[in-house]
Amino acid sequence: MPTDSLAEIVAAVGKEVADAHRGAGKVADYIPALARVDPNRFGLAVITCEGETAEFGDAWLPFSIQSISKVFTLTLALERLGEALWTRVGREPSGSRFNSIVQLEAEKGVPRNPFINAGAIVVTDAVLAGRTPEAAIADIRDTLRRLADNDTIEVDKEVATSEAATGFRNYALANFMRGFDNLNGPVEDVLQTYFHQCSLRITCRQLARAGLFLAREGLDPLNGNRIVSPEHARRINAIMMTCGHYDASGEFAFQVGLPGKSGVGGGILTIVPDRAAVAVWSPGLNEVGNSQVGTLALEKLAARMKWSVF
Amino acid sequence: MPTDSLAEIVAAVGKEVADAHRGAGKVADYIPALARVDPNRFGLAVITCEGETAEFGDAWLPFSIQSISKVFTLTLALERLGEALWTRVGREPSGSRFNSIVQLEAEKGVPRNPFINAGAIVVTDAVLAGRTPEAAIADIRDTLRRLADNDTIEVDKEVATSEAATGFRNYALANFMRGFDNLNGPVEDVLQTYFHQCSLRITCRQLARAGLFLAREGLDPLNGNRIVSPEHARRINAIMMTCGHYDASGEFAFQVGLPGKSGVGGGILTIVPDRAAVAVWSPGLNEVGNSQVGTLALEKLAARMKWSVF
Amino acid sequence: MPTDSLAEIVAAVGKEVADAHRGAGKVADYIPALARVDPNRFGLAVITCEGETAEFGDAWLPFSIQSISKVFTLTLALERLGEALWTRVGREPSGSRFNSIVQLEAEKGVPRNPFINAGAIVVTDAVLAGRTPEAAIADIRDTLRRLADNDTIEVDKEVATSEAATGFRNYALANFMRGFDNLNGPVEDVLQTYFHQCSLRITCRQLARAGLFLAREGLDPLNGNRIVSPEHARRINAIMMTCGHYDASGEFAFQVGLPGKSGVGGGILTIVPDRAAVAVWSPGLNEVGNSQVGTLALEKLAARMKWSVF
Amino acid sequence: MPTDSLAEIVAAVGKEVADAHRGAGKVADYIPALARVDPNRFGLAVITCEGETAEFGDAWLPFSIQSISKVFTLTLALERLGEALWTRVGREPSGSRFNSIVQLEAEKGVPRNPFINAGAIVVTDAVLAGRTPEAAIADIRDTLRRLADNDTIEVDKEVATSEAATGFRNYALANFMRGFDNLNGPVEDVLQTYFHQCSLRITCRQLARAGLFLAREGLDPLNGNRIVSPEHARRINAIMMTCGHYDASGEFAFQVGLPGKSGVGGGILTIVPDRAAVAVWSPGLNEVGNSQVGTLALEKLAARMKWSVF
Repeated sequence: MPTDSLAEIVAAVGKEVADAHRGAGKVADYIPALARVDPNRFGLAVITCEGETAEFGDAWLPFSIQSISKVFTLTLALERLGEALWTRVGREPSGSRFNSIVQLEAEKGVPRNPFINAGAIVVTDAVLAGRTPEAAIADIRDTLRRLADNDTIEVDKEVATSEAATGFRNYALANFMRGFDNLNGPVEDVLQTYFHQCSLRITCRQLARAGLFLAREGLDPLNGNRIVSPEHARRINAIMMTCGHYDASGEFAFQVGLPGKSGVGGGILTIVPDRAAVAVWSPGLNEVGNSQVGTLALEKLAARMKWSVF
Repeated sequence: MPTDSLAEIVAAVGKEVADAHRGAGKVADYIPALARVDPNRFGLAVITCEGETAEFGDAWLPFSIQSISKVFTLTLALERLGEALWTRVGREPSGSRFNSIVQLEAEKGVPRNPFINAGAIVVTDAVLAGRTPEAAIADIRDTLRRLADNDTIEVDKEVATSEAATGFRNYALANFMRGFDNLNGPVEDVLQTYFHQCSLRITCRQLARAGLFLAREGLDPLNGNRIVSPEHARRINAIMMTCGHYDASGEFAFQVGLPGKSGVGGGILTIVPDRAAVAVWSPGLNEVGNSQVGTLALEKLAARMKWSVF
Repeated sequence: MPTDSLAEIVAAVGKEVADAHRGAGKVADYIPALARVDPNRFGLAVITCEGETAEFGDAWLPFSIQSISKVFTLTLALERLGEALWTRVGREPSGSRFNSIVQLEAEKGVPRNPFINAGAIVVTDAVLAGRTPEAAIADIRDTLRRLADNDTIEVDKEVATSEAATGFRNYALANFMRGFDNLNGPVEDVLQTYFHQCSLRITCRQLARAGLFLAREGLDPLNGNRIVSPEHARRINAIMMTCGHYDASGEFAFQVGLPGKSGVGGGILTIVPDRAAVAVWSPGLNEVGNSQVGTLALEKLAARMKWSVF
Repeated sequence: MPTDSLAEIVAAVGKEVADAHRGAGKVADYIPALARVDPNRFGLAVITCEGETAEFGDAWLPFSIQSISKVFTLTLALERLGEALWTRVGREPSGSRFNSIVQLEAEKGVPRNPFINAGAIVVTDAVLAGRTPEAAIADIRDTLRRLADNDTIEVDKEVATSEAATGFRNYALANFMRGFDNLNGPVEDVLQTYFHQCSLRITCRQLARAGLFLAREGLDPLNGNRIVSPEHARRINAIMMTCGHYDASGEFAFQVGLPGKSGVGGGILTIVPDRAAVAVWSPGLNEVGNSQVGTLALEKLAARMKWSVF
């Protein structure tokens, strides 16, 4: 009996999960543009290191990348600063909520890791590197376009404006770190860059493609481009595994068994080392803020494909 | 043998302390305008409920009021909001440093008391009350002028500008509370008002006069004006006693035994209930940020006058 | 028209408060012996520095002293160790609940003040001073007997046993501090002493008498005995003012305006400097753990007598 | 050219690391029995799912298992309580030191994960399950003997006694959780069991063998015994990956890229899913308390064998 193909498994898992759970969870509603998203959307896209692709549902529809962008700014910052980045941000799990300021006070303005908000803001400051926010935002967007091999990726200005208008906690974090001399750029420039990077719109298809270099030790397996060193790729994957899902990173490690990063837009990027990259999108979030149906789809897909590293 | 007069005691205590300790402590140096202050300055002024005055040294020289202004904005806010103010700020000692943000996170954006920075910012927001910062600053300045019976009290613009340029922690606190909906005004307006109120320049003579209403249950004993209700006056005094000296409020209660409020400009306002108000100024601070020589002078004066309430 | 006498005022306040509020609040129920206490009890006793006494209600009935005992062990420890005590326990308000362990970790096993549980345990360790718990308990009891001029004061063994059987948090605090080398005696000995001191039974009449030395700078005004130095008496009063009512010390300072210490048995000892000592007892507690009706009675009495120091 | 065999690689890595770094790090010295250990010891043992073994150096010498025992008590507790265990202990990284009590207070006595001390104590309580400490200790020891297929594994009584005599922080944690009703057994029984389990002596050879079931989804690949369900095995591995190395779990995930658990005795157990189990021992610890040379050896071995999951 022939083994099911990747396409068959993706279709089967997608259908099973979508039929049973479509619309579950609670769509992020802290800004209007996110609250308006149709909760019934569900997309899934896989791309392997050999270039095979498989998709299900709304894999072609753009959604708000939100915190998944932190993976790509970390990539940029690591290439720019190298190990020096780690004097400004840690790489250990935080044990606190994504926007907690308590740890920052105890540790003198050095965030625990690049995926909590404070850490991502430091990383964005490193990417900003004295440029204008416009230049840095264009750089981040173009990096994502290049990695995704797609020139249509764009910032959603309405989302960026709303993020800025309601992002008091992020202003607090940035000013707090600035007070500890752990931001070089002006708070406003750093945060504008940060809010715009979170407001990029991307499809599952594009996102999986953009993350594929992390499955092959930093080398894009389809075009041979070296994106980051093998060491940096391993570092990013390790951080995705231990810190990629806020207060439920341990849970995701168990359920899916793969490095991943979620965003409140309902997307999740997952890396299958040496094999593939997977992107899923379903807007409803579970109580810790990760896509509820998306996580479930990844769990089932990883089980079917025997992808869990554990 | 006749008892020493107030003037004699003030002169004796002033001379004794100034001779032995003048210049002790460390002048605040986080902004240039404060760092430039002559560390050898020392002023002491007492005014009684009967209108008797006694002074020593530089009691006629203006200095930066800094956190002592919090007493007067609290007075204004209490009169404006009454007990409703206490839904937005507590009135218990904090047990944390004056600029800690940890307690704020645990208690959902409600500061412990009106004298830690976060609490004072909320109070300033209550005073701002939808006006422009210019209007609110003028109101605070005019209140102080009226209480001090002196029209020369003015904001030091250089200090205000420096405070704003380096006040990242205050921006963090304000944005943090704004994120919890505990600021009504725009962060920038509230903080500009706050930085300006802290930058008012006042003399010991004026400061003692301005605080005198707190010694007589809210009634200015010299002109009969009712400034606050007896209850509010008692409340302010109680908060000065338990929270007026940052992390050394308990120590001040022991040493001096009177309600007081210090500022990093080196000033301290102290209330002798039913008797008098005292202001002292000496720029050098002890390690918790209170005027070192000023505290000593108050301790000796309170002992000589048998003013300690304990 | 003649001024009301102390006795008349005590009777009037006692009757007014008891009539309107008797039984209000919630009796401590974490151990059976406390839970059984009749919630309608209400006692009030005043003794002046001239020896005048006035009482109302159940002032002659013994109740469980609980945390009020901390005033007397602090007295003992200060006389024994003097200023050296302050290397082991602070004297600033804590801003945390009475049994919080968080501050202890941040400050390496040194409690904020002698009235939070951790601080009181350190003070008890200082009183234990290498003796057996029996000897230390007898010492504390005898001190209280001597101060109260009454030999019937006794430990309630049932309460002490229950406290020990349910005092896990206190065991946690003691072991935690032992781990920081801030306890000299064995944990079990220190805690047995502590639980017994909290289980002493005393009447309002006895308690007011026992605390009277604090109203006269450490000198018992009725028999001329020097109990503590004036400086130590002032220190104890200052700590009572700033830390005597858990998370509501600032509130008590405002409402009553006097140094005081409460216990979960429903008693409160209050000092009127240079005038008198007051003890009140009503078992129902408010939400922060202080006697609800007792606090009210003190507030009214202080207002009538114009005793507030503010 | 033939590929190097496992034995050759283990020998080469062992020699390279031992030659260059033997004795590096700081031996745990909080109890005499640990402080006496020869810092130059170094052992390494690998066992594959096919039963192939390879060793280097002191792989035959017993050392103190310490926190690595937590893997085996977690195994026992999961089989006993199943998912109900997770109501009493979390499974997320803690972001705090291994013995912190702060998180416990904020989260009402529920430890973050089974590998911080508080969590391990809860797990031990679940294993104790109403039995005597002697019975529970024998159960844990026998489980380890059975898994390691070796009957000589024994508790070091001197170590257990010393742990108990100096374990004030653990007493604090246990009493604290008992106060939140998150321990069922008497504190003393739970801790005696805990101290004894940490005092088991085991060799690298035995430890690798004992952990092998975690490499094959809970099934011992050499004798076919089902130790835990595949789901529980995956859970344990995920927790080892995200929480196995105290405050350096993220770092270990990057450096070695495998689930692992360290102990202050200098040992580390590492699982290579679907392939092998590895144990290393070198007593000198790095500044976060993990074996310095042991970690290095694992890093090099994982790199040579291409075992990192990232």
